[in-house]
Parts: sequence; C-alpha cells; structure tokens
Amino acid sequence: MNLKINPERLWANLMETALIGGTQKGGIRRLSLTDEDKRVRDWFKQACESLGCTVSIDELGNMFARRPGRDNTLPPICIGSHLDTQPTGGKFDGVLGVLAGLEILHTLHAAGYETNAPVEVVNWTNEEGARFSPAMLASGAFAGVFDRDFVLSRKDRDGLSFHDELRRIGYAGSIPVQARSISGMFELHIEQGPVLEAENIDIGIVTGVQGMRWYEIAITGVESHAGSTPMWFRKDALLGAAKAVELVREVGVRHGPLAVSTVGVMDVRPNSPNVIPGEVFITIDLRHPDDAVLNCMERELFGALTTALDAISLTFVWERVWHSPAVHFDSHLNEYVRRAADRLGLSRRDIISGAGHDAAYISRVAPTTMIFVPCRDGISHNELEDLTFEQCAAGAAVLLETVLAFDESLEPLQVER
Amino acid sequence: MNLKINPERLWANLMETALIGGTQKGGIRRLSLTDEDKRVRDWFKQACESLGCTVSIDELGNMFARRPGRDNTLPPICIGSHLDTQPTGGKFDGVLGVLAGLEILHTLHAAGYETNAPVEVVNWTNEEGARFSPAMLASGAFAGVFDRDFVLSRKDRDGLSFHDELRRIGYAGSIPVQARSISGMFELHIEQGPVLEAENIDIGIVTGVQGMRWYEIAITGVESHAGSTPMWFRKDALLGAAKAVELVREVGVRHGPLAVSTVGVMDVRPNSPNVIPGEVFITIDLRHPDDAVLNCMERELFGALTTALDAISLTFVWERVWHSPAVHFDSHLNEYVRRAADRLGLSRRDIISGAGHDAAYISRVAPTTMIFVPCRDGISHNELEDLTFEQCAAGAAVLLETVLAFDESLEPLQVER
Repeated sequence: MNLKINPERLWANLMETALIGGTQKGGIRRLSLTDEDKRVRDWFKQACESLGCTVSIDELGNMFARRPGRDNTLPPICIGSHLDTQPTGGKFDGVLGVLAGLEILHTLHAAGYETNAPVEVVNWTNEEGARFSPAMLASGAFAGVFDRDFVLSRKDRDGLSFHDELRRIGYAGSIPVQARSISGMFELHIEQGPVLEAENIDIGIVTGVQGMRWYEIAITGVESHAGSTPMWFRKDALLGAAKAVELVREVGVRHGPLAVSTVGVMDVRPNSPNVIPGEVFITIDLRHPDDAVLNCMERELFGALTTALDAISLTFVWERVWHSPAVHFDSHLNEYVRRAADRLGLSRRDIISGAGHDAAYISRVAPTTMIFVPCRDGISHNELEDLTFEQCAAGAAVLLETVLAFDESLEPLQVER
Repeated sequence: MNLKINPERLWANLMETALIGGTQKGGIRRLSLTDEDKRVRDWFKQACESLGCTVSIDELGNMFARRPGRDNTLPPICIGSHLDTQPTGGKFDGVLGVLAGLEILHTLHAAGYETNAPVEVVNWTNEEGARFSPAMLASGAFAGVFDRDFVLSRKDRDGLSFHDELRRIGYAGSIPVQARSISGMFELHIEQGPVLEAENIDIGIVTGVQGMRWYEIAITGVESHAGSTPMWFRKDALLGAAKAVELVREVGVRHGPLAVSTVGVMDVRPNSPNVIPGEVFITIDLRHPDDAVLNCMERELFGALTTALDAISLTFVWERVWHSPAVHFDSHLNEYVRRAADRLGLSRRDIISGAGHDAAYISRVAPTTMIFVPCRDGISHNELEDLTFEQCAAGAAVLLETVLAFDESLEPLQVER
C-alpha cells in the first residue's frame, strides 16, 4: 500500500465549507436543518457523487455516501461525523471527521483502489443538539436509543419541528433509520480539550467516552429590596448558587484528574440590580469514565449542597435530567489505530473523550472507535477553535492507514482477490 | 384640632386601585406609562377633582392635585409618592404615599377645614425605573438632576420612548418640569425592610437615605467544552462571578449593620449546559448612610476581587454606572413627625432609608422628609408585600397630624386668621 491522502485538498475543502455559515470571527454558525445545513449537505452530496459514490438518505436526514468494494455483501466500513455546528462553533468540530472521510474517498478514487468492503462516509444529523435537543439525535435513533417519531417531533426554540425543517431543506429520505450491519465505524475528531497539545502528542487513541450526567437545580430564597433588607435578614438565592458553583468545582477537582464538573447555565430571577434574587436556576454537568465514581460524585455534591444551603436558609430541588453511561470503544479497532500511528511515525497516547460523539451511540450497534487530533489551546464550541495543517494531515493519514489495514483484515466472501 | 383620617376609606382605596394591574398572587404589575398606569392616573384625577381639587400635569406627567389654602401665595405643602410599580410589585410601595395624601384631602374636605397653605398631593412619574431607567426620573427632573429631554428620550426594552408613551396615555402636560417653591414635602412609605417590624415599632422617622452606588462588572475567562477541558485547564468566568458574589456579601457584612451589598443581576454567556462560561456580567449595588464608608467599601471590594480573579486567571472590567450621595432629610420636619407620633401614642424610632425615593431628590430643592410604616417580613418589590390595616392607619394618621401641625406653623401672608 502506498496510498497517501492529499492534505492540501482536505484543508481546502475544510476552508471552502467553512464559508457556509461562516462567521466574522472565523467560526461557523450552521445549525442543524437550517438553510446553511442544506447548503453544506448539497456540497457534500455533490462532492461524493462526483467520485462515483451513491448518496442515500434516511428518514432522519443521515447521509451515507457509499463507495462499493470488491464484496458488496460485506458490511460497510463507515467513516463519519457531523456537518452541523454550535451557534458560534468552530471549523473543525465534526466537519473534520466527515471531510477526512471524503478525502479518503478522493484518495481511493484517484488511485483506483478497490477495498474489500464497501466504504461509506456518513454525515449524522443534529449532533450538536444546539437547535434540537438532545444532542446526537439521529445517530442515537440509528442505534435504537431514540424513537424515530420522538426525533421528528423535537422542536427548536421558535417552535419549528425537526420533521418540518428536515422536509423543508429536502433531506427527509425514505430509508428507515435503523442499525444496519457495519464492519467498523471510525470517527476522526479534534480532541476539544488541551491534553494532546499540552503533551505534544499527534494522535489520541480514544478508548472510550466519559459517563455524563446532567442535573437541573432550582434554589429558592426570598426576593426582597436590595436597599432596605439588612444583610442578616436576607435569603439570597444567588449566594446559594455561588456556593453551588464552588462545590461543583470542588467535587471535580477532588475526583481529578479524570473527573470534570461544570455549571454552564445560571438564570437569576428577577435579575434586577436592586432586588435580592429570590430564585436561581442552574445546570450541573458531571463526567467521569467510571460510572461508580460518578455515583460517588453525585452523592458528595448534593450532600454538601444540602448542608451549605441549609446553613443560609435556602431551599432547593434537584433533578437528574439526562445521563449517558460511560462508553468503551472496541479494543480491536483501537489497536488498528495504534499500529497506524506507529507505522506513520506519529506519537500517540490513549485518551478518554470528555465529550459525547455520534460514535458513542454507534458503538452500541457496531464495532466503533475514534481518533483524536490536538486542537489549539483545547478550545472548541468556539469560533476560535483551531488546529494546524500538519495536525489535520496527520489525523487524516492515520484514518486512511487504519481503514486500509482494517479493510485488509476483512475476508471477501464472494470475490476472489 | 380633632381631625381624623378614615382608615377604612384609605384601605378600600388601596384595595380598589390594586385591581388596576392586579396580579393573581395579589400584587400589582403597573409599569410606568402603560395602559394600567393611565387607568390609575384617571382614577386618582377623578377622585381628587371630586373633592374640589385642581389637577395639573407637567411635561413629564407628574400630577399635582391642589387644594387651596387660606393664603394661596404660600408655597404648597406637598404630600406624595408614586403610583407605578415593579413588574411583580406589591400593593403599597408608592401607592400608600399617594393614597394617604388623597385620604388627607378627603378628611380636610369632609371637615371643611381650611389649611393656611395650599396642599398638593403629588404622583411622580416612573419612580420604579422598572420600565424606563434610571429610577425616579421625573422627580429627579423636577429637582434639576435630569434634563427634561433626557427623560423624554428614555426608551423601554421594546424601544418605546417615554415621550411617545406619555403622549399615548394622555398625560403629557404643558407645565414646565421645574422646582417650584414648596413649604414642605412629606412622603409616607412602607419601610421595605424588616427593622420596624422586628422591633415592633409603629413609625419610622426617616432622617436620610443611604448613599448608593451601582457597578457593572464583566468577568472574562475562556469559553470551552465542559466535557473535554480538564479542571486544571479551565478559565471559568462563572467561578469568578461566584467569588464576586461572596466578596460582595462579605463587604456588606463587614461594614454592618448599616451597610448593604447586593449582586442583583447575573448574565452568563453562552449559558449552555455543556459549555464552560467564557463571560459573566454582574451588577453590584452598595449602600451606606456615610459616603466615606462607601468609598472604603468600594476600595476593599475591588481590591479583593482583583486578587481573587487573578488567582484563577480571569480578567475583569468594572465601572461605577450610577451613584446617589447620602441624603439627609430636613431635621425640622423630622421633629414634626416625632411629635405627631408621640401625640398619637405611637412608638417610633429614627431610621435611614435603604431604598431610593422621590423624596430624596425633592430634598435637594425643598424641605423634605419621609415617614415609614412597617411591612410584613420586610418584603417589598414583591407581590407578597403587605402591611396590616392598623399599620396603614397609623401611618396616615401621623401624616395628617404632621401636615396639620406644620401647616399651623406657616404664617398666612395676606389673610387674617
């Protein structure tokens, strides 16, 4: 094998599609099922078809660009991620995984190389969850986690439904959304964290995804006048929320280095300069690769919060609104990625993904893994999200090397090699 | 003198007007220059005119219901407050001061009593500042603090202007807004704090208003992914804001019992469950009756905040966006209130107002004081705001007693008694 990806072409495609929904600060605003999403889908479809691939679309808009192999009865090798972004997202989160897949199609096509199994490059609908909640709706439905009708009924903040918007942009396909047999699923992604960059490592071998739990907490005090209510008389819900923020941080630090804990949302009522807040709503996000540790973090946090808020005469209610168990990727596929990195002379380390990904759901129904590349300053979900040309090239090269080696291992059933 | 207010009539008027903009929880939503404001103004105008008073309206909608005295060249005795409320306000904040004035007009009218000086009951426009910022716009303009055109140009959150809304409800008068000579200005108000109730005192002799300063603070960290950013790598702006909330509380407690300090507004960006907040905006409200102590509080707070935020790699900018120096009411008028309370056998104590009031501005251009009555649990700016019938009656009785005694002291110039 002497196939090589063309890193300039990959980079050029990333920059070209980044203009679809491109923002002034160099990021992308390309929410799922918007006009911008339609434009990038059209671009992707046309690019794949020009390489002789067939693009099929399922009921939830998931796109599968198929390049036939020697034995088309073999389950396909899937490569993919998502083309939607956060409201002020970057140019690489998700897009890299799809366009690196496209680059592999280009490379195979240019070389006239025939794989044993068919190769399919996938664009999963609505990974970010920024428009239709929750995240990873369509890969989740593919894996049987969500019901099709549940997904179609999701509404955005303006009350527009997934169903109507999917039809509006012309991407409501006819193929039922359900898991088909897949030989292996590979998702290349930026790390979205600082570890690889800090350690100067080229490739992350993603062995799993952290367990994640989301909570909603409403803290209640007494709304009263900021001028005429003495300090000793106050029941300030925002003071309680401040203590919650500190306790959430403490529980993450205590269970470090693998634990992370975040208060991302805080809504203060009535949110007026001269009124002591009577009610504060917050969200808490706890993650750890071990569900048993997550149980422990949850217990410690809400125990400490009860004590702290009791002490300042506040009450609160909390609810776990979402959770995703820890995911363990296919160790066999991990090993293919390790060897590919080694063959290419790239440094590597095992890593756990702190973020959710389509691959986490797909791992429930097919052998799956991910490949991480560093990103600048660990920043993502941000218009400043960045990685170097070399990092990008290294990731795509490892993806190609992995896919080819994995494909070699698949036995054609009906065709003599 | 044997005049007595009719506490049932006062209470009935409070309950009747509370239906104008009344909320399900028993409060009032009557924002300045809305349809509800027009309705309560119409009601007040009609009530005063039925007692033979002339209601004049200035360019900013301030209403002056005048009952002539023996000597109409004497500057009037003014009694008043405001009829607008917070978005979820109570039935007494402001309204009590106007309707107690109306009750005095009723009492004088029923008795055919002729005061030396004319008596004017005033409704100041937009005291709350909840619709058009800042608060006390129209009494401020009367006192020369704000320019007329500045007030007229203020816009609400929907972009509607004070000028247009004032015309729309038909309360744009022709009288120039400017201080006229006033013999004395009296404002009866609920305490909006817990002190009188906690000490079981009937009447607060308000000797002044706390100095107040408002600040806006923007704390900047780095927005990043909640799952893949290790705890040690975070620059969490919300953690900084939480520390600010605690430092603000500490500075108030340290300078107690007279100091109060509040974070009332917190806006978190991007406010998404799985994104570490990159930017948080907060407001800080500091109050103390001594401006020198306020200087000290300001220095201590922002010094401590700089140290705390530096330590967690956050930056911030702060600005003092508004301040109101400490106000000292007329000691001569205070003495009239003390004697009135004593004559009526009511308990009293001197008190400093923690809240701003129209009277604070009017005190710049006329002898002014306020009378406080307790309110339940110290709660105001809240639909649960309440006081007892007896507390309400006591306050209005002291107001009448004070006004009559003060009026006695005024020398008619042109008329033989």
